Amino acid sequence: MTTLSFEAAQEKDNADPLAGLRDKFHLPEDVIYLDGNSLGALPKSVMGMVNTAITEEWGNGLIRSWNDADWISLPQRIGGKIAPLIGSTPHQVIMADSTSVNLFKTLSAACAIRPSRKKIITEKNNFPTDNYIAQGVVQQLNQGHELVYIESPDDITTALGHDVAVVMLTHVNYRDGRMLDMGAITKAAHDVGALIIWDLAHSAGAVPLYLDQHNVDFAVGCGYKYLNGGPGAPAFVYAADRHLGQVFQPLSGWFAHQSPFAFDPSFAPATTIDQFLCGTPSVLSSVALNAALDLWQDVDIDLVRAKSLALTDFFIDLVERRCHGHGLTLITAKEHHHRGSQVSFTHPEAGYAIIAALIADGVIGDFRAPNILRFGFTPLYTSFCDVWLAVDKLATILENKTWDQPQFHNRKTVT
Amino acid sequence: MTTLSFEAAQEKDNADPLAGLRDKFHLPEDVIYLDGNSLGALPKSVMGMVNTAITEEWGNGLIRSWNDADWISLPQRIGGKIAPLIGSTPHQVIMADSTSVNLFKTLSAACAIRPSRKKIITEKNNFPTDNYIAQGVVQQLNQGHELVYIESPDDITTALGHDVAVVMLTHVNYRDGRMLDMGAITKAAHDVGALIIWDLAHSAGAVPLYLDQHNVDFAVGCGYKYLNGGPGAPAFVYAADRHLGQVFQPLSGWFAHQSPFAFDPSFAPATTIDQFLCGTPSVLSSVALNAALDLWQDVDIDLVRAKSLALTDFFIDLVERRCHGHGLTLITAKEHHHRGSQVSFTHPEAGYAIIAALIADGVIGDFRAPNILRFGFTPLYTSFCDVWLAVDKLATILENKTWDQPQFHNRKTVT
Repeated sequence: MTTLSFEAAQEKDNADPLAGLRDKFHLPEDVIYLDGNSLGALPKSVMGMVNTAITEEWGNGLIRSWNDADWISLPQRIGGKIAPLIGSTPHQVIMADSTSVNLFKTLSAACAIRPSRKKIITEKNNFPTDNYIAQGVVQQLNQGHELVYIESPDDITTALGHDVAVVMLTHVNYRDGRMLDMGAITKAAHDVGALIIWDLAHSAGAVPLYLDQHNVDFAVGCGYKYLNGGPGAPAFVYAADRHLGQVFQPLSGWFAHQSPFAFDPSFAPATTIDQFLCGTPSVLSSVALNAALDLWQDVDIDLVRAKSLALTDFFIDLVERRCHGHGLTLITAKEHHHRGSQVSFTHPEAGYAIIAALIADGVIGDFRAPNILRFGFTPLYTSFCDVWLAVDKLATILENKTWDQPQFHNRKTVT
Repeated sequence: MTTLSFEAAQEKDNADPLAGLRDKFHLPEDVIYLDGNSLGALPKSVMGMVNTAITEEWGNGLIRSWNDADWISLPQRIGGKIAPLIGSTPHQVIMADSTSVNLFKTLSAACAIRPSRKKIITEKNNFPTDNYIAQGVVQQLNQGHELVYIESPDDITTALGHDVAVVMLTHVNYRDGRMLDMGAITKAAHDVGALIIWDLAHSAGAVPLYLDQHNVDFAVGCGYKYLNGGPGAPAFVYAADRHLGQVFQPLSGWFAHQSPFAFDPSFAPATTIDQFLCGTPSVLSSVALNAALDLWQDVDIDLVRAKSLALTDFFIDLVERRCHGHGLTLITAKEHHHRGSQVSFTHPEAGYAIIAALIADGVIGDFRAPNILRFGFTPLYTSFCDVWLAVDKLATILENKTWDQPQFHNRKTVT
C-alpha cells in the first residue's frame, strides 16, 4: 500500500474523527461533490424542518407563528449559532439579507465612522460582487472616496496610510483559495487608524476564525457555502460590540428599528446587532439555514481545519503524482497558513472543458474565468475516498484527452 | 332571510365565481383568517414545489441546479408572473430582496435622476419602514435632501412644486386601507417634473393596477401578503422601460451586472430590469413564491376586485348593524374608489384587547398601534360565510365584554 493508493484513502477515512458527520448529509450516489465552496450539500434534517415551517407554522399557525414559532428571533438565533464558528460572542452576529447587501451596510457604516478619510482598500482579485458593491457605495456617497485596488494581498502594507478609511478584504480568495493573515492585517489597518471589513464567504465553517480576538470591526459572510444553508441562503453580519448603536447603517428598514412594532414615524436604530437588519427576513430560507447550523453543535472547528488540510494535501499530492505533464499548474498555496479549504489549478487552454468533462463523469468541481479549475473540500462530508476517486477520474480524462471533445467546449454559465 | 343573515352569506358564496379557488389553499379548520394583508395563507401547491427544490434540485442536482432547474431565472420568471397583476409588461418587473431594500434602490435611483431637486414627498402615515428607508437614503446622500411629510394624501397637490425630486407613496394605506388615485397623483407629480415611486404592498393581488398606463416610474411590492408567497417571501421591483439601463442603483451586486459570471473587475449594470437585483436570491423562498403565483394564471383581477368590494361592504354593513354602540369607529372609506381590500376600525381604549379576544376565539385580524383593529380580505380564499361568522364572534365579544379580561390586555408583539 503506497501512501497515495485507494487503500490509503480508506485508511484515512477509517481514522477520521469527523467521518460520522457525512451521514447527516444527503449526497447523491453517482456524484463526488467538490463544490461545497459554491453550494453546500443538503443536510438531511432540513427537509423536516422546512416541512414543519410550511405546514404547521405557516399553514396552521399563519401570522401567529411570528410569535408562536418564534420566527421573529430567527436572525438572532441563527447569528448565535454562527458566532462560535467565527470567534465571536452571539450578540455581535446576525443573519440578514445577502452578503452583497450586508457589505453595502457595513462599508457604508465604516465610511461614516471615518468621514475625513477617503481611501477604501480592496484587492483587485477580490470576489467581484464585493468590489461592485464598493463601487456602488463610492458613487452614491459622492464624497470623493477612492477605491484603491491592490494587486496582491502582499501589497497591503505599502497601501496603508493615514488617509485610509476602510480596508475591505476577503479572508479566503474565491479563485486561488489563498487565506490571508487576519490578525496581522487587521492590526496593520488599525495601526493607521483605518477600519477593517472581512468577507468570510469562503472561511466560515471551513477554517477557525477569531474575530473578537483580532479586534475586527465588521465582517460579512455567506450561508450557502460551508454552512450548508441551501441555495441563496441568507447571509450574516458581524459588528464589533464597540460599534453597535454607534454607527450609521443606511438600509434602515423596520427590523433595524429599536422597536419595530411600535410603528414610530422616525427611525431610531436598535443599539444592538439588530441595527444591521433591514426588511422582513425570508423565513423559509432562514429555517433551512437554521436547521443546517445545528450540525455544528458538537463539532470541533480545529478538527475541521485539520481534516481540511489533510484533504487538500492529499488532493495536491495525488494530482501532482498522477496528472503530471498535462498542463495543470497549482495556484493554491502549499503552506498551510496560506490555504483555505479549496485547491485550484490553472490550465492554459482547457480549464472549462476539463471541468465539463469531470462533471459529466460525476465529479463536480467548478470553473472560474479565465482558466481556473476549482475544487472545494467540506470536511463535514468530503471523504478521502472522494478525493482519491476524483483524482483518478481527472487523471483518466487528462491522459485520454477525453476533455477534448466538442460537447465539453460548449461554454455556458457555470455558477 | 334578511340581506345580513347567515343564509345571505351562503347565497353570496354560492354565487361567487372565485369560490373554487379557496380549495387551493390550506386553511386551518378552527380559524377564520382575516389577516392575509399581513401574511397570505398557504397555497397547497407550495409544499410539493419546495420539497422538489430541496430534495431533487438541491439534494441531487446540487450546484448544477442553477442551470438545470433554472434557479438562475427565478427572479425574472417570478417578475413575469407578477407583471400582469400590476399592469406591466414582464420585462419591467423582477423579484428581489425585501420591500425595504427595493425601496432603497428605487429611491436612490430616483434621487440620482433629479440631482438638483432636494424634496422627497412622503405621507406621514406611510408604512414606517418606507419612511425609515427614506430617512436612511437622505442621510447617506448627505446632499441636503428634505423629506416632506404630508399629513394626508389630500395635501399632495399643495406639496408639489418644481423643487420636488420624488413622490413616494403607498397605494393602499396599511392602517386605514385608503386607496389613492394612482393615475391622478402620478400625473400631478410628472406635471411638476417629479418622479414617482409607488409601494404596492397592500395592492398587488388585491386591486387592479395599471402601472404602464399611468406612466409610473418605479414601484416596489411585497410577496407575502396578497400574493401568498410565504413568510418573508422575496419582494419585487417595477421600473419603467424608459429608466432601464439609464439609472444608477447603488446596491450594485453581481446579479445586477450585465454579465454576472464573467467576473469582470468593474461593475457594468445590466441594461434590463436585472439591474435591480443585488446578491444571490434566496432560492427556497423564491420557489414558494413562484408556486403561489401560479394560482393567478386564470384569475380575472376584475373579479377579484368585485369580490373584494362585496366582502368589505358586507363586513362593514354587518359590523354597523350588529356592533353598534360598542365604540367602534370605521376609518376605512365607504367609497369604493378609496378602499383597498381591508377594513379598519378604531376603538377608543380596547383595540388590542378586542383583537386578542377575537384571536383567542379563532378569528384572526390584527392590531395596529395606537388603536386600530384591522381586517384583511383575500378574495382568493375569504368567503362571505367567513365574514358573517367573524362579525358574529366580534359582536358577541363586544356585547359580553369578553375582551375585558386580563389575559387580553397583556400586550405582546403582534406582527
